[in-house]
Amino acid sequence: MTTYTATVTVRLKRGVLDPEAETTKRALERLGFELEALRFTERYEVDLDAADADEAEARADEMAERLLANPTIHDYEVAVAEA
Amino acid sequence: MTTYTATVTVRLKRGVLDPEAETTKRALERLGFELEALRFTERYEVDLDAADADEAEARADEMAERLLANPTIHDYEVAVAEA
Repeated sequence: MTTYTATVTVRLKRGVLDPEAETTKRALERLGFELEALRFTERYEVDLDAADADEAEARADEMAERLLANPTIHDYEVAVAEA
Repeated sequence: MTTYTATVTVRLKRGVLDPEAETTKRALERLGFELEALRFTERYEVDLDAADADEAEARADEMAERLLANPTIHDYEVAVAEA
C-alpha cells in the first residue's frame, strides 16, 4: 500500500448563482480594489492508502460523488499524487 | 492592460484546528471510506486588468492580506496567469 494525496476541487456549475463570491467581490470593491470577476472553489486534500494511483483516484471520485460535491450544482475534478 | 486570473489559495496554518475538515472526514468514514487525513482549502479566482503579471500579483496579494485571508490563522499563496 502507498499513501496518496487526492485533491478534489469542487466548483459551482456555470450559471449557478454564487452569492458568497458576489459578496466577496463587492467587499473588495468597497475596499477600493478593481476586479472583473471572482469565483470561489473548495478543495479537499484527502490522504489515503491505496494499492495504486488508479485505486486512489477511484475512491476519491466516489467520495466526491457521495459527499463532497452536490452533482446538481457542482462540477468536480480529482487529481492524485503520491503523498 | 491585459486581463489576468489571480488564484489565491487560503489554508489554515499548521496546528490550527479545522472542525469542518474533521467533520467531513468523520462523515466519509461513516459512509465506509478509509482515509488517513483530510484538509480543506479555499481558492479564490480573481479576474483583473493589470499592466503586467507583477502588478496583478501585487494586487491579488493585497486582496489576500486585507480580506481573503486572516493572517492570524491562514497561510495563502497567489498564482497569476493570463486569463
